[in-house]
Amino acid sequence: MTRLLFLVILFFATLAEAAPLWMDFDSSGGTRVTVKGRVKSPILDTAVRELALHYDGDVTIDLKSDKSLGRDGFAISETPGGITITASKPQGALYGAYRLLRNVKAGYPAASGRSVPAYGLRILNHWDNLDGTVERGYAGKSLWKWEELPATVSPRYEEYARACASVGINAAVLNNVNASSRILSAEYLEKVAALADVMRPYGIAVCLSVNFASPVQLDSLPTADPLDPAVARWWKRKADEIYRLVPDFGGFLVKANSEGQPGPMDYGRTHAEGANMLARALKPHGGIVMWRAFVYSPLDEDRAKQAYLEFQPLDGAFDPNVIVQIKNGPIDFQPREPYSPLFGAMPSTPQMVEFQITQEYLGHANHLAYLAPMWTEFYDYVAPESIVASSGVANIGDSECLTGNPMAQANWFAFGELSWDPHATPAEIADEWLRLSVYRRDAAPDAAVHDALMSMMLDSREAVVDYMMPMGLHHIFAFGHHYGPEPWCDVPGARADWLPRYYHRADSAGLGFDRSPSGSDAVGQYPEPLRSRLSSIETCPEEFLLWFHHVPWDYTMPSGMTMWEQLCASYQRGVDKVAGFQRVWDMAEPVVIPGLYADVRGRLMTQMRDAEWWRDACLLYFSQYSGRPIPLDIPRPVHTLDDMRAVNLGITNFESPAPQLLNKAR
Amino acid sequence: MTRLLFLVILFFATLAEAAPLWMDFDSSGGTRVTVKGRVKSPILDTAVRELALHYDGDVTIDLKSDKSLGRDGFAISETPGGITITASKPQGALYGAYRLLRNVKAGYPAASGRSVPAYGLRILNHWDNLDGTVERGYAGKSLWKWEELPATVSPRYEEYARACASVGINAAVLNNVNASSRILSAEYLEKVAALADVMRPYGIAVCLSVNFASPVQLDSLPTADPLDPAVARWWKRKADEIYRLVPDFGGFLVKANSEGQPGPMDYGRTHAEGANMLARALKPHGGIVMWRAFVYSPLDEDRAKQAYLEFQPLDGAFDPNVIVQIKNGPIDFQPREPYSPLFGAMPSTPQMVEFQITQEYLGHANHLAYLAPMWTEFYDYVAPESIVASSGVANIGDSECLTGNPMAQANWFAFGELSWDPHATPAEIADEWLRLSVYRRDAAPDAAVHDALMSMMLDSREAVVDYMMPMGLHHIFAFGHHYGPEPWCDVPGARADWLPRYYHRADSAGLGFDRSPSGSDAVGQYPEPLRSRLSSIETCPEEFLLWFHHVPWDYTMPSGMTMWEQLCASYQRGVDKVAGFQRVWDMAEPVVIPGLYADVRGRLMTQMRDAEWWRDACLLYFSQYSGRPIPLDIPRPVHTLDDMRAVNLGITNFESPAPQLLNKAR
Repeated sequence: MTRLLFLVILFFATLAEAAPLWMDFDSSGGTRVTVKGRVKSPILDTAVRELALHYDGDVTIDLKSDKSLGRDGFAISETPGGITITASKPQGALYGAYRLLRNVKAGYPAASGRSVPAYGLRILNHWDNLDGTVERGYAGKSLWKWEELPATVSPRYEEYARACASVGINAAVLNNVNASSRILSAEYLEKVAALADVMRPYGIAVCLSVNFASPVQLDSLPTADPLDPAVARWWKRKADEIYRLVPDFGGFLVKANSEGQPGPMDYGRTHAEGANMLARALKPHGGIVMWRAFVYSPLDEDRAKQAYLEFQPLDGAFDPNVIVQIKNGPIDFQPREPYSPLFGAMPSTPQMVEFQITQEYLGHANHLAYLAPMWTEFYDYVAPESIVASSGVANIGDSECLTGNPMAQANWFAFGELSWDPHATPAEIADEWLRLSVYRRDAAPDAAVHDALMSMMLDSREAVVDYMMPMGLHHIFAFGHHYGPEPWCDVPGARADWLPRYYHRADSAGLGFDRSPSGSDAVGQYPEPLRSRLSSIETCPEEFLLWFHHVPWDYTMPSGMTMWEQLCASYQRGVDKVAGFQRVWDMAEPVVIPGLYADVRGRLMTQMRDAEWWRDACLLYFSQYSGRPIPLDIPRPVHTLDDMRAVNLGITNFESPAPQLLNKAR
Repeated sequence: MTRLLFLVILFFATLAEAAPLWMDFDSSGGTRVTVKGRVKSPILDTAVRELALHYDGDVTIDLKSDKSLGRDGFAISETPGGITITASKPQGALYGAYRLLRNVKAGYPAASGRSVPAYGLRILNHWDNLDGTVERGYAGKSLWKWEELPATVSPRYEEYARACASVGINAAVLNNVNASSRILSAEYLEKVAALADVMRPYGIAVCLSVNFASPVQLDSLPTADPLDPAVARWWKRKADEIYRLVPDFGGFLVKANSEGQPGPMDYGRTHAEGANMLARALKPHGGIVMWRAFVYSPLDEDRAKQAYLEFQPLDGAFDPNVIVQIKNGPIDFQPREPYSPLFGAMPSTPQMVEFQITQEYLGHANHLAYLAPMWTEFYDYVAPESIVASSGVANIGDSECLTGNPMAQANWFAFGELSWDPHATPAEIADEWLRLSVYRRDAAPDAAVHDALMSMMLDSREAVVDYMMPMGLHHIFAFGHHYGPEPWCDVPGARADWLPRYYHRADSAGLGFDRSPSGSDAVGQYPEPLRSRLSSIETCPEEFLLWFHHVPWDYTMPSGMTMWEQLCASYQRGVDKVAGFQRVWDMAEPVVIPGLYADVRGRLMTQMRDAEWWRDACLLYFSQYSGRPIPLDIPRPVHTLDDMRAVNLGITNFESPAPQLLNKAR
């Protein structure tokens, strides 16, 4: 019943140079790994190889099967005789193997008991275009070299899959939700299959974003109406074709009738009719449809209300293999949003959350922003058990460290961890990531340095909130690229709901968007007692005050300051926090990997200057409306409003501005 | 014996718009001015007109003659019947008139007793070129519109003369010491005469910088050898020509054998032989020669020693109507220099000081730097009585406020005040200037605001020292324009003594120029007991430490800090001071003239960012040599060394970088 495998694996150079820092495990030649059970799978082979290569010790590691550890779960136990990883499936064994390697590298106890993921689907969304650009990508070009595939397979694909698997990620949508139909062409499906072959041994299921008009665009069908039998047939044949090439294909992600994308409503059909048609094509193969709820019309009164208005009535109309994928907040990945009220409002419909790992509104690759606190904040409002899956818009590209800013690796890592266990704390995750990724092997940090770095990580997103959107003052980012401040932004002909004034509504009376019952009543979409709490300016949490209310400049805050004074103090607090991060980072220099130290030091300089830019832009701009001076205990602006209004970074939505560009612009 | 004049003067619009702020006196129609004495002079007419126009009160002002008030002195007394200004000469009456108007505007008592200037010559040096550029000029183009003269005479010439007279300045060298021979051509002398005509009623004597090779360049003489009789004749004829056009012409200023300018040493003659030849041409007309001692050779070991080495042996060799004009310090107008040891070292030679009012090394028109403390510091070492005249390199151009930065008017004002009374304190001068220039007429400042502005003014030059040349670390300015930091500067082929490394001498051992007896022994040029005090690292004043010593990085300062730590703290102190100036300025907004407030607020923003630029550039650069990190209590750099090294402002020596240029460069 037991088969013993002795594996002799040639030592090969690790690919650590291109891998995330947390994957830089030690190498070893001396570990014996045995597999107890009847399973034979490439995933199990991966687990065995990883342990044999990287578990440093003269020990036997047993991989055992135990079906009681449902889903992808595992358990690690240690006895005097060795270490046992128990799992129900090969994938569980792989996760257990990485958990063990991470425990060792982080200096944690090897054994860590039973661990079962909260969600069966833990998926990255790549907004990668077929031309190699990445929408909202700040880590270089796409990792996928479509033009080389399928003939040439970059070793970086495997590094990517390995890093994902090490934090429990088990699926990836390879292409942008603003999808090109070409991804479904025979030519591109061959490329997709080649990528799937690389990812299979790491348990990563490949998925694709599809353009709803694909039948029209790709094969000249006269319509893409989901109720047209020819259209349904087209999709069924396409699904069959995909599964012939990729038997473990995961499914489709769809952005339909949103920001100009085609969809079922073009033909008078509902989102459900469109999604179900696709779902039925995939169902025979076990595939799913992830249908995005990110919709808003320029005609409605309050963008924040529209996903709810459009989707909530469809509750119960979706097929079982459709999941409605909802952004965490009702607008668009702001540094802080209240949760989207669509969560919990469709009890008969499977829902999944869409987080954004890439820092579209959080300083791109230049700013330090550890996002786990943002995501656990979401779970403070939305019970993890109420959704069925977790997706994250990836921050990955072909830059050397894969994420542009090496500190942003922490967000890829944390997304995996929280998709596995939404009850994990940001501190637990940061503690491990720092120990795995940041420290030199020859210089362990003392407790003071580690604690300071922990504080830096845990406060980093709040710092960004302080200087980009204090008190819920949202979406005043530069047009297009969303990098710097543009509260004054006015683009002739642009949709009103793409312009900052739509959101901040500054006037001589006050500041903020009135979404109370006397305003747009967006609060009415939230359940009681939260609805009442948000409705009143007195009980609305301070961090959402200007999100839900138009607040008088002289309104007295709980702190005793006026709203204007507290706004000013918040911007400065953000600046001060970044100054503190710079200091912590320099304090940690002796224990930080030298290349990492130098890289991040430069980024913190940029962040510091950006934080002052945000403070100056917003305070000088809004003081025109408040009619009040910036309190004298706030450091004075160092940029004139005219100079800041003249800033035009001239960057695309596919890049992070280089420090040199920022130096020249500001 | 007494002639009574009743003057009825048509009211004319004041030219206040273009005048310095301190000249914005009230207008009046009701004052009666009488002149008691036999004098009839255009200068006296000016005094009468100024009082009649601007003394606001139904009162009689008597102008009386009293020869006991030697030189240009005056006295103001007040009786129930009126006010009496007593003077020995018309010029004294004019100074008394302005003193009275200033007293009234500043809110001081009208009467202010007897006042006699320390020096008979109080002269501005304009480094204005004939093409309209101004070397080291940061206030636009030259005020003199040579191409329009003599046909068109700008009303701004009179505004200039009036402002000079109001602070006792009585002479002006119109053109750059790097002189074009053309200034002595018949064509240009006519233009000079037209300017002299404007200045005469204000008691301003016109002088010219002359090129020593003028006979060769202008009239093709084969030589400019001062001992050649033909050359001497040429100069004599030229002097006669000048005096025919300008009977009260003041004399020549000469930069000879310095930085490439021609001079007597080109012919094997001494400075004295050259100067005396010119002096003899002027003597019949009462003119003088101001012969500059600003000389240094690229071949000598220490530039700081060279003026002394070249001039001191010539003591007693100069004719009586030659004055040797010496820069206050031995190098070149650094934010802080020890006094030039040439002062006091030529007991048989008249000497005069050359201050620089224009801020060549103090942030051009962008930085606030009230220079009176720099000049009184000079007089702490050099007894005012030991020199015979005071000159200042003007900061005046055709910008609206005449000085580029309106706050720099204070330096023009202070130069006049200290040339009149070198024992005046910077605080007295600043107090009056603020009251005359800064406050709105409708909003008197309370004591707290006035005191804060006083502190700002009095500390402003020290702030610049802190962030540009702490502890005597000098001449690490950008090549050419001398605006920003370039401690790393290396220009292939440039003279060594034009490059920062020549001065800072940073190496792994320490920092600073060893001018002690074991080094260049420049200290040996100073008299005892100062010589000994400067010679020892233990007794050398801290502000000159790196000027005179190469100091180990870990040398313990009196503060207990190491030299490196104190250097870091000094740069930051400068940054902090500028932040404080910004705050004071914003605090004062309600009482400051609005246009002035807005203008200076923008400049302070630039200064703040420049101060951080200096801090970052110098600390990151020198930390490469110190091998020590920047102490963690100092805010971290916000610029990388690479970015700063790449800065190239691309400006000429005739301009101040615009904030927009700096925004783009840094």
